[in-house]
Amino acid sequence: MKTQVAIVGAGPAGLMLGHLLRAEGIECVVVERQAPDYVLSRIRAGVLEQVTVGIMARLGLDARLRREGLVEAGFNLADGERLIRIDVQDLTGQTVVVYGQTEIQRDLMDAAPERGLEVVWEAADVALHDIESEAPRLTYSKDGVAHEIAARFIVGCDGYHGPSRQAIPASVGRSFERVYPFGWLGILADVPPCNDELIYANHERGFALASMRSHTRSRYYVDVPLTEKVEDWSDERIWDELAVRLGPEAAANMTRGPSIEKSIAPLRSFVFEPMRHGSLLLCGDAAHIVPPTGAKGLNLAASDVHYAAEALVGWFRRHDADAVAGYSEKALARVWKSERFSWSLTKLMHRFPEDGPFERRMQVAELDYIATSRAAQQGIAENYVGLPV
Amino acid sequence: MKTQVAIVGAGPAGLMLGHLLRAEGIECVVVERQAPDYVLSRIRAGVLEQVTVGIMARLGLDARLRREGLVEAGFNLADGERLIRIDVQDLTGQTVVVYGQTEIQRDLMDAAPERGLEVVWEAADVALHDIESEAPRLTYSKDGVAHEIAARFIVGCDGYHGPSRQAIPASVGRSFERVYPFGWLGILADVPPCNDELIYANHERGFALASMRSHTRSRYYVDVPLTEKVEDWSDERIWDELAVRLGPEAAANMTRGPSIEKSIAPLRSFVFEPMRHGSLLLCGDAAHIVPPTGAKGLNLAASDVHYAAEALVGWFRRHDADAVAGYSEKALARVWKSERFSWSLTKLMHRFPEDGPFERRMQVAELDYIATSRAAQQGIAENYVGLPV
Repeated sequence: MKTQVAIVGAGPAGLMLGHLLRAEGIECVVVERQAPDYVLSRIRAGVLEQVTVGIMARLGLDARLRREGLVEAGFNLADGERLIRIDVQDLTGQTVVVYGQTEIQRDLMDAAPERGLEVVWEAADVALHDIESEAPRLTYSKDGVAHEIAARFIVGCDGYHGPSRQAIPASVGRSFERVYPFGWLGILADVPPCNDELIYANHERGFALASMRSHTRSRYYVDVPLTEKVEDWSDERIWDELAVRLGPEAAANMTRGPSIEKSIAPLRSFVFEPMRHGSLLLCGDAAHIVPPTGAKGLNLAASDVHYAAEALVGWFRRHDADAVAGYSEKALARVWKSERFSWSLTKLMHRFPEDGPFERRMQVAELDYIATSRAAQQGIAENYVGLPV
Repeated sequence: MKTQVAIVGAGPAGLMLGHLLRAEGIECVVVERQAPDYVLSRIRAGVLEQVTVGIMARLGLDARLRREGLVEAGFNLADGERLIRIDVQDLTGQTVVVYGQTEIQRDLMDAAPERGLEVVWEAADVALHDIESEAPRLTYSKDGVAHEIAARFIVGCDGYHGPSRQAIPASVGRSFERVYPFGWLGILADVPPCNDELIYANHERGFALASMRSHTRSRYYVDVPLTEKVEDWSDERIWDELAVRLGPEAAANMTRGPSIEKSIAPLRSFVFEPMRHGSLLLCGDAAHIVPPTGAKGLNLAASDVHYAAEALVGWFRRHDADAVAGYSEKALARVWKSERFSWSLTKLMHRFPEDGPFERRMQVAELDYIATSRAAQQGIAENYVGLPV
């Protein structure tokens, strides 16, 4: 098979990019290792920046998002004693939208057939070839049959563990990484959220986050040492821990219910440079991971996709090679700023084993400062809604 | 001798407080271990917040400061490639004033006799007694003769190593401390400054600061490992190092000259709680130390003095015991915020031995973010000019 752009991975990044390219009349094929149901069952992010909402709107795929998404005008930082509300709308003129990544995924998948976006599901042994040439190839096998796609560009939207990043020679790339000494134990339940807006809490027993996917579906987290096992956390134990860490007011409004999903996710900061090598571009988790504090992961993938689509449309529609050449630098500038925000909010809201009483007081002082400074709140808010693309 | 307030230490904090109390007709005596010339020869801070300028103005002792002080409308962060100017005046409507601590000290000392502020110089073996009672006493010896001052309150303005903080029982107090793995090697020289405004630089070889005391006197720093000895740093070696770390533009404008003073100062964050115990109040370095990044040390002493004077005037003039009772909490709220700013600016502008490539990129990303965000600049600027008292 021959196409203009071969996309590896049919998660939100790959499908958004595919739709954006199709809308511009650029040929592309998306190749995905998993089956559709598996991809749809992954429970991930739920807070969308305007850049992400904007892509769905440009694609005309935002009808359900507009109908079902919860527009959030602010969020809260808690320190065990009080809520510090960050009035995002007042501070930035913008809002974020709570709408599960799963729903985005469904909207993008549902629209693929009618828009002529071809997705190959359950493609095994995906491999990239000749990425340093102008004729890169993608090979995979499906139902035991070997396939090859010849393209002008390959875009890797295949996550941290996918083959795309690994196709770049070690001598070319550089990785930056920080692993955090805890994970987030998450619980998803069909109960109304305890609060209209997210609450990030730094309690002496540890971190907690009260979030939601809709008016009837809640998502909560507590941080736990990486040695913990999810089997040791009954639903009741998680609800009890949340009630303590989120504080009495949130606890009073918290509805308990059976978990739909429960898991421990490690926290990591990771960036790979460059985000383009030869004819291969990387988007999203394939190039970088943020800790989930601040909800930047999906949104950062969306801004990568925005830049990648711009670069590829420039190439195929305007014969502009500079856009592709500049993709990595442009994308990385925003990536590093989002990495910084996610890292600093993670440091502010978690207790680190290596921190002593002085560092703890620095957290308290920063929360005190944020509570009283409009400039400090504005800095947080503008990062939360997403820096300009 | 009997007085209302005995003040330990005749540095800027002790003398400011003494003058403020005398202006309200409150009796006080200042007791100082050193001789006047010694105190005047200490080279310290040079950047004054409006709170500090305001105290000198309230005392009517700001004539020379107004005449000789350099009004600074901004300062710069450098990262080896560029200058990021923080336009403090535009961002906050306020300015800072460059005027050496030595000059403040001289102005306060010169005014003491005419205003009836008694200062006992070269008082040996200063000791505090009965601070938990309502009749605390200060003892010292001078020229071999033992003296005692009975007072209603004692205020410790005697710095980190003075006897005041140590008079508070260990069971009552709590210390918070962070020691940094480097010191500032400073050079003072009678040469014009390389730039009108301060430059804080984070170069790959380390930190540098270009500062000044006047149009003809410059103050520069580089950070060095704590194992370095000042004897190993010739003037030339310091100038060479500064030229590299400050970058080519600053280096081109830098005038070299013989050092008047040269020393290595360790960097430390330290806070002691509470700042009042019984009839003893602590002000300035007696209760807290900040690393010099951001120039908060003298200014924080001045805001302590502001709160302490308010509390003591309340007590003696309006029989208001609450003001004294609330002193520690009020002062500490501002202290912790200044500690946070000094600590975070220190972390942003220095290379730490324990930091890896990811942490280095976080510094770069933060500088990039600051360079492009008015909110981020405003947060820095409002701390730099001093948070409201």
